[in-house]
Amino acid sequence: MSVLCCPAISVPEHTIDMEQTLELARQLHPHHTNLSLILRLIKNTGVKKRHLVQSIEKTLHHPGFEERNLTYVHEAKKRLPAVIETALKNAQVTAEQINAIIFVSCTGFTMPSLTAWIINNLGFRNDTRQLPIAQLGCAAGGAAISHAHNFCQAYPEANVLIVACELCSLCYQPSDLNIGNLLSNGLFGDALGAAVVRGQGGRGMRLEHNGSRLVLGTEDWISYAVKNTGFHFQLDRRVPGTMEQLAPQLRAMASVHDWDVEQLDFYIIHAGGPRILSDLSHFLQVDLDLFEHSQATLTEYGNVASVVVLDALRRQFVAGLPDGSRGIIAGFGPGITAEIVLGTWQGNGLSQ
Amino acid sequence: MSVLCCPAISVPEHTIDMEQTLELARQLHPHHTNLSLILRLIKNTGVKKRHLVQSIEKTLHHPGFEERNLTYVHEAKKRLPAVIETALKNAQVTAEQINAIIFVSCTGFTMPSLTAWIINNLGFRNDTRQLPIAQLGCAAGGAAISHAHNFCQAYPEANVLIVACELCSLCYQPSDLNIGNLLSNGLFGDALGAAVVRGQGGRGMRLEHNGSRLVLGTEDWISYAVKNTGFHFQLDRRVPGTMEQLAPQLRAMASVHDWDVEQLDFYIIHAGGPRILSDLSHFLQVDLDLFEHSQATLTEYGNVASVVVLDALRRQFVAGLPDGSRGIIAGFGPGITAEIVLGTWQGNGLSQ
Repeated sequence: MSVLCCPAISVPEHTIDMEQTLELARQLHPHHTNLSLILRLIKNTGVKKRHLVQSIEKTLHHPGFEERNLTYVHEAKKRLPAVIETALKNAQVTAEQINAIIFVSCTGFTMPSLTAWIINNLGFRNDTRQLPIAQLGCAAGGAAISHAHNFCQAYPEANVLIVACELCSLCYQPSDLNIGNLLSNGLFGDALGAAVVRGQGGRGMRLEHNGSRLVLGTEDWISYAVKNTGFHFQLDRRVPGTMEQLAPQLRAMASVHDWDVEQLDFYIIHAGGPRILSDLSHFLQVDLDLFEHSQATLTEYGNVASVVVLDALRRQFVAGLPDGSRGIIAGFGPGITAEIVLGTWQGNGLSQ
Repeated sequence: MSVLCCPAISVPEHTIDMEQTLELARQLHPHHTNLSLILRLIKNTGVKKRHLVQSIEKTLHHPGFEERNLTYVHEAKKRLPAVIETALKNAQVTAEQINAIIFVSCTGFTMPSLTAWIINNLGFRNDTRQLPIAQLGCAAGGAAISHAHNFCQAYPEANVLIVACELCSLCYQPSDLNIGNLLSNGLFGDALGAAVVRGQGGRGMRLEHNGSRLVLGTEDWISYAVKNTGFHFQLDRRVPGTMEQLAPQLRAMASVHDWDVEQLDFYIIHAGGPRILSDLSHFLQVDLDLFEHSQATLTEYGNVASVVVLDALRRQFVAGLPDGSRGIIAGFGPGITAEIVLGTWQGNGLSQ
């Protein structure tokens, strides 16, 4: 049975705090009809601080899709080596021992994927499998864990490196002025994460069961409009309400595994926004305190897309858990898709 | 052991033949310094005809990345239902019996992936796994087959639907005038393909072994430049020469499986261009006639990216093979990556 080892997380050096975010919204959109609503929605996110790969000034300037994407590649290459090195160390494996790299990122686009650059430059073997996923958005962290586990089921000796690279600030679109966009400008942050799933050995979360659920008929609710200016994030106001539909799916998946979703010991939830956590707490009848690590990721980094579940899990490693603790990882993203993983704590993982 | 059933292929109704392609090159670039070389290179492709989702006139007009991508979505949705339906029929499974959809396409970009639309509209279950891959280019057909097989190794009762959607003509860039681009304008065609990999039962190619190989240091040789006008294909002149490096990798992979790559009964090769086939024939010491189905795909449809291996395999089904015949599928694409699958013919597949 494969084990998900302690993730490594890297956040960039530039930051923006809540007060700066609110002040910017006031400065940039003084005459917006819904300014007070937008300010209230941003305050409600509870995001205290976010990290950015560029200064606030540069972030606000849109130099065109081409230059944005070149910045994405430049910033990713600058930051990937350290986070990958730490993830390998946490798992006590070397680059040569990795059989597959799952690279998830929805905030820039390259072909070939950065997996080719990683293999060429960071000491991986030329027969490393490459699985780049650009279209699962915030759900991709959970999906990557599932795919890594499934790969280890097929090849029990394998080790899989997961890398998530989300430079959300490079998708900032100054011309998008609807409420959902202005909210998301106050919500998303930049971060990179990496973690190894070991087919044999390793300490961390023993992966036991996984699955995916699509909320039918909601494919337009979270999406990119692809324009000459790049990817434009589109968020439907009905999105937070989907937890009512997804909670029974989480319950059913736990039940298939003979677990009671209300009685788990740890919960690693994609903290896309504050209502996701409070709604899920309500519909799962789970104390909100059990989502503390997901909440901490949201508060300290904002919504860092597919990196959220990796960062919340890293916090869980730091906090520690008794062996045998049962838990769930749930990533949510466009589709609307939930990517769900169940597993048991096995040994204390190394913290970053 | 999983079985890859007979692929379904769909090519659009508009066509362009070699003579039209040459005439267009002459008309559009009468004063190009290298016109005669370009015409010779196009003639050498041996591509007699290609299919296009739009008329030649519309294809030549670039309406901007946004409109191009909307056309991609519109044309894909129009053509996916039939090809998926045929693939399911060929495999004698229903949409409800599919556990995962692997959707590969590098010629348009959407988030969510079209997997969400497929599930919502074509009768698939809401717990179908979604694996969209946009960044493996022409190698993605082979990669999809490997991932489908690996998924069935992890879940032996599973069925996986592979869908490849390559509308290459929507990446035509009128402003790209170097020799590699003008050659590729005469090489790529549009096509969609689908095939089911069955974990249990099924007739076709029993999948036994697979792997991936990166040619180190070549990540810039086949790539997209991502610009405000969309994806710009970039082809290095050294690409055809990589068969010299990949042939030993194919040989080694066959050898690990106790097979002699020179002595196989069938070869399904990504026919990216004519030199790939002739070089591989030379370096593998395999008669060029054994690549006849790959050659037919290239001649009749052009390079249809990730669809090539599915179409060549469909032709192999139509031609038939004795049970127990041993073969290889090799997809090549950016990275430069080779995605390689070995398997044995098992029962006669249904032809499209």
